[in-house]
Amino acid sequence: MPESTPHPFDLATALTDASDGVQRGNTSEAYANMVGPFGGITAATLLRAVQRHPDCLGDPLSLTVNYAAPITDGAFGVRARPARTNRSTQHWAIELVQDGAVTTTATAVTGIRRDTWSSTEVAAPDAPPFDQVEPAPPLGFIKWIDNYELRFVVGAIPEEASGEQDDSTSTLWVRDQPARPLDHAALTALCDVFYPRVFLRQGRYVPAGTVSLTVYFHARAEELAAQGTEPVLATARAQRFGAGFFDQSAQLFGRNGAVLATSHQLVYFKA
Amino acid sequence: MPESTPHPFDLATALTDASDGVQRGNTSEAYANMVGPFGGITAATLLRAVQRHPDCLGDPLSLTVNYAAPITDGAFGVRARPARTNRSTQHWAIELVQDGAVTTTATAVTGIRRDTWSSTEVAAPDAPPFDQVEPAPPLGFIKWIDNYELRFVVGAIPEEASGEQDDSTSTLWVRDQPARPLDHAALTALCDVFYPRVFLRQGRYVPAGTVSLTVYFHARAEELAAQGTEPVLATARAQRFGAGFFDQSAQLFGRNGAVLATSHQLVYFKA
Repeated sequence: MPESTPHPFDLATALTDASDGVQRGNTSEAYANMVGPFGGITAATLLRAVQRHPDCLGDPLSLTVNYAAPITDGAFGVRARPARTNRSTQHWAIELVQDGAVTTTATAVTGIRRDTWSSTEVAAPDAPPFDQVEPAPPLGFIKWIDNYELRFVVGAIPEEASGEQDDSTSTLWVRDQPARPLDHAALTALCDVFYPRVFLRQGRYVPAGTVSLTVYFHARAEELAAQGTEPVLATARAQRFGAGFFDQSAQLFGRNGAVLATSHQLVYFKA
Repeated sequence: MPESTPHPFDLATALTDASDGVQRGNTSEAYANMVGPFGGITAATLLRAVQRHPDCLGDPLSLTVNYAAPITDGAFGVRARPARTNRSTQHWAIELVQDGAVTTTATAVTGIRRDTWSSTEVAAPDAPPFDQVEPAPPLGFIKWIDNYELRFVVGAIPEEASGEQDDSTSTLWVRDQPARPLDHAALTALCDVFYPRVFLRQGRYVPAGTVSLTVYFHARAEELAAQGTEPVLATARAQRFGAGFFDQSAQLFGRNGAVLATSHQLVYFKA
């Protein structure tokens, strides 16, 4: 890819400033899901809106995105407002709006990080090296997946003969396709790269969609820059399914087993 | 306690309606933390503001609270606004305000739950029965803790001779003190009942405070009602500490190992 061509991720999350303080964007066909855009690209776009805001303080620390309604293909506006700015942290209130109606609500915290005592308690799951794992075959009917190189170690996307399983864990190597240096926005989208855990448990596709997604950013910009285009080892599982919803907790590991992000979501399902 | 005396939790989370649509509350001395109120009581108060709103649809599904600034002892206002109402889910934008300044931002999702396929993947940690575990001694200098009966199975609050540990897990039996029937608001506060994990790892107290807290509610109102005043088995651990922040993931188990809530937070620390 020549250097002058923007990466599809950057095109999909691009925003421009309007005179009313609203940032304008457009959905990207490349990141389309069954209905509306891939939730991860929406989350990444909202983080971008914070990061490109002239008042933004420091690196992303946390982000919560609530998927209130489907986003229609086409133009949208993002209102990102610093609700409170302290000396070293800043709290954001964010809304994605289409035709005057809120489709997505979000909050974010950014801040200046300083060196402190550090420790990682969680270990990356066992996995063969990236190049020894088979790439997942293209799905065809879900466009956004083509923007990711997915290599499942366990818990691949179920096929007709997969049947029910009693463990909802998926572990996979993943990176942007074509490869793209990792940053906080791309990491945000990666946190939502797991298909609904109920598919894996039931061995079939059922109606499902993320209701709320939270990302905790553990890696600073420098650590993500050092990760470059190397694949990330991502793992996710559910804890409880019932009464129309389940949760999912995920960990994304970078070079040398560093936890780049931990992420959680609540997912609607019908089964 | 005679039936006519409200429980301290209900007094601390009480709100009244003002003519401007803002709900008014007051901090409670009984739930005071080192600086400002216990984060769990603030989260519970914000959930209450949603639940008592005349337009509220269904049960709580998720809640995210961002602690933007200390809350000063005294009066505060809560603005809880339904940003989007669908047929079976509703998305809330919430702010706690003092003297015109935002101290806390939050979002919540409520909705109507329907019976579906259900499964619990996560098991409660091993623990002796409640009545075979010693109650934690009162701390004295942190008032809100007196409102909880805490019985630590592992990871008790460190004392001077505790020393460093390599595992941040705390598991404890916990319930309101005096006992009070469990509901979503009380469960929300319980999700923040763990002291900062960095204390346990370092074997000492350091400056620390929750930046963002998320609760996923797995139990419906009926399930919480069936729990009554029985103690909850709660467990929490961190995944990565570094550059001034760590995360914490928690699970709260009720009768028969039911996962009542899963909860996550990002915590600031200095060490």
